[in-house]
Amino acid sequence: MKKDNKNFQDQILPLRDEIDAIDAKILSLLARRQAQVEKVVALKKIHSIPVYHPAREEDLISRLRLQSQNHGLDPDFMENLYRVILRQSRVKQTQKMEVKGVRPDAKILVIGGEGQMGSLFANLFTKSGYAVRILTEHNWDHARDLCQDIDLALVSVPIERTVQVIEKISPFLPSTALLADLTSVKKKPVARMLSTHKGPVLGVHPLFGPTLSCLDKQIIVVTPGRDETACGWFTEQLSLWGAVIVKSSPDEHDEIMEIVQALRHFATFCFGDFLCHRQAKLSRTLEFSSPIYRLELGMVGRLFAQDPALYAQIIFATKGRRALLKEFILSLGRHVDMLETNDKQLFVDKFRHVAKWFGPFSDQAMRESTFLIDKLIERF
Amino acid sequence: MKKDNKNFQDQILPLRDEIDAIDAKILSLLARRQAQVEKVVALKKIHSIPVYHPAREEDLISRLRLQSQNHGLDPDFMENLYRVILRQSRVKQTQKMEVKGVRPDAKILVIGGEGQMGSLFANLFTKSGYAVRILTEHNWDHARDLCQDIDLALVSVPIERTVQVIEKISPFLPSTALLADLTSVKKKPVARMLSTHKGPVLGVHPLFGPTLSCLDKQIIVVTPGRDETACGWFTEQLSLWGAVIVKSSPDEHDEIMEIVQALRHFATFCFGDFLCHRQAKLSRTLEFSSPIYRLELGMVGRLFAQDPALYAQIIFATKGRRALLKEFILSLGRHVDMLETNDKQLFVDKFRHVAKWFGPFSDQAMRESTFLIDKLIERF
Repeated sequence: MKKDNKNFQDQILPLRDEIDAIDAKILSLLARRQAQVEKVVALKKIHSIPVYHPAREEDLISRLRLQSQNHGLDPDFMENLYRVILRQSRVKQTQKMEVKGVRPDAKILVIGGEGQMGSLFANLFTKSGYAVRILTEHNWDHARDLCQDIDLALVSVPIERTVQVIEKISPFLPSTALLADLTSVKKKPVARMLSTHKGPVLGVHPLFGPTLSCLDKQIIVVTPGRDETACGWFTEQLSLWGAVIVKSSPDEHDEIMEIVQALRHFATFCFGDFLCHRQAKLSRTLEFSSPIYRLELGMVGRLFAQDPALYAQIIFATKGRRALLKEFILSLGRHVDMLETNDKQLFVDKFRHVAKWFGPFSDQAMRESTFLIDKLIERF
Repeated sequence: MKKDNKNFQDQILPLRDEIDAIDAKILSLLARRQAQVEKVVALKKIHSIPVYHPAREEDLISRLRLQSQNHGLDPDFMENLYRVILRQSRVKQTQKMEVKGVRPDAKILVIGGEGQMGSLFANLFTKSGYAVRILTEHNWDHARDLCQDIDLALVSVPIERTVQVIEKISPFLPSTALLADLTSVKKKPVARMLSTHKGPVLGVHPLFGPTLSCLDKQIIVVTPGRDETACGWFTEQLSLWGAVIVKSSPDEHDEIMEIVQALRHFATFCFGDFLCHRQAKLSRTLEFSSPIYRLELGMVGRLFAQDPALYAQIIFATKGRRALLKEFILSLGRHVDMLETNDKQLFVDKFRHVAKWFGPFSDQAMRESTFLIDKLIERF
């Protein structure tokens, strides 16, 4: 047995050395690839050409899939691999391009610019060459001076102070300045901006947390208030930073956010609260976890790793939201009978009804989540 | 402008050609790598060495991370890339190794072997060189013959028929045969196997759906009933197919599954049911979706893409489960007051209490889910 082991080692070591040598070559090719990509970026910058070129990416993937088959490689594997490479290349390119300002002579005032979200935007503007001023509670005495000649006042303060801050800052603004806010509700702030400021008004809601380093493919909802043309450069700048812009009205935005934010977070909170209440054996449970359950429980755990005040703000934002959440709780009561009478058929009927309503989204969700489960297995 | 564009095209085309040439080289290196890996697998097969070698993988990743920095590449990017490559290599290796049987002379009877899960296991056994017999409702007349000389009887029938099938098959089994079931509850089936069969007994619960092609890193819970030593070869075979084996008692298993399966699926069902009840604008909602919400809604949609009868089985499996789900519904009622009185502070207090209970899992969940969100952004 010992001899056999020695024999095995003698045979496997040269194979492993060969694999290591191949990996070293791949690595140096990736470094060369990165250098070429940087040259492309430099060229694009000179000619003001957008970084992201979806058609070229898809061409490249299609070609590589074909070539894979000729080389006896799995095309899905090759596609997965190049999605990682192309994303890295896109991030690199976007980082380089961030320097470019759409209207770099514009003066920006970020109100609440020391908060997390305010800082994120202040940094993005600064990197893109804008002159950025920060207004906080501490230098409010200088508000009038700081507002002088500004082209954009961006309100980034906690939701309960937004309206009040809008009222206080508006009298100092030049009438041509664009007034915008980053609050996660839009009806009240936009209405107040319109009534207190006579110039261009734009409601903005970034659908992401303030810990990002790059806006690549992140969604930002904008709800136009007044003079969309005058707001165009700002929206364009958000796009250039990599964000996807979704246009909506304040009413529609708030209605959809009731579901997307309040209901979802509240349902997650309730689930976590019940696990805690039941003293579920969390760590042993995880050992019993298929990747999909791990992922779902991860979504619950993720919530509780974050700031409770932020979630209180989101959940309790409006009376309408609180009514919706109460309706959700009461709607669950409809299922008690079904459980008590052990009525499986009723469950199947209800299930089918909902499935029909979800329609093609279900299959798409199945595909997307299966993809993610594979990623989870790969990594952890 | 036209001239400028021509100029840009002239300059960018050679760069793109160079990138394409690099990609072709990477592809051919990956094909060579795969060939070397296949040689390693062949060697391992001869020497009966396990395929997956976590330490070697981690060494390789650490070394590549270091080398990346020397080449000006992002180490995280390199790690992501090699996780994809190593996973592919592992899948390839496992596929090759599946041929190996731990006890290839053993005769296997799969009861319910035409069902989805039964077929999956019948195929795995067949691929590994075992003699596999299938017993279904249609050939039940031959049950006695099919049971002759068998070494393993694997019961894979719907949950409500498991106990009955165990009772019917046991009298035909050789007393040395291992009797095992694949049901998603374990207390009743294992108790009944122990009382009707005198030989080795093992409860088995695969924590995955029957649509998998490979068990790589999937979890299988085993609850020993009698004569663990005699069950060893079967558990070892499951490991060799790539599964992770978690040992438990039938009691503990069922208690944990109440949470992992019943509660989770029921909560998801309730959420989907409420969205349908409210007629939420699903497609517009998705346009407003950050990757994390898309992922969460995807988890809900995913449920409704599947078989309602399967979920009815899971949710209504036992009286205890139905009681737990009722308790869950009622526990939500505790939050109505908080919503009605707009008591944000109470929410923050409850939130903190749960967060403390989740402990370090929250941060881990944050890391894992952030990783997945990146993957989602990459791909969709």
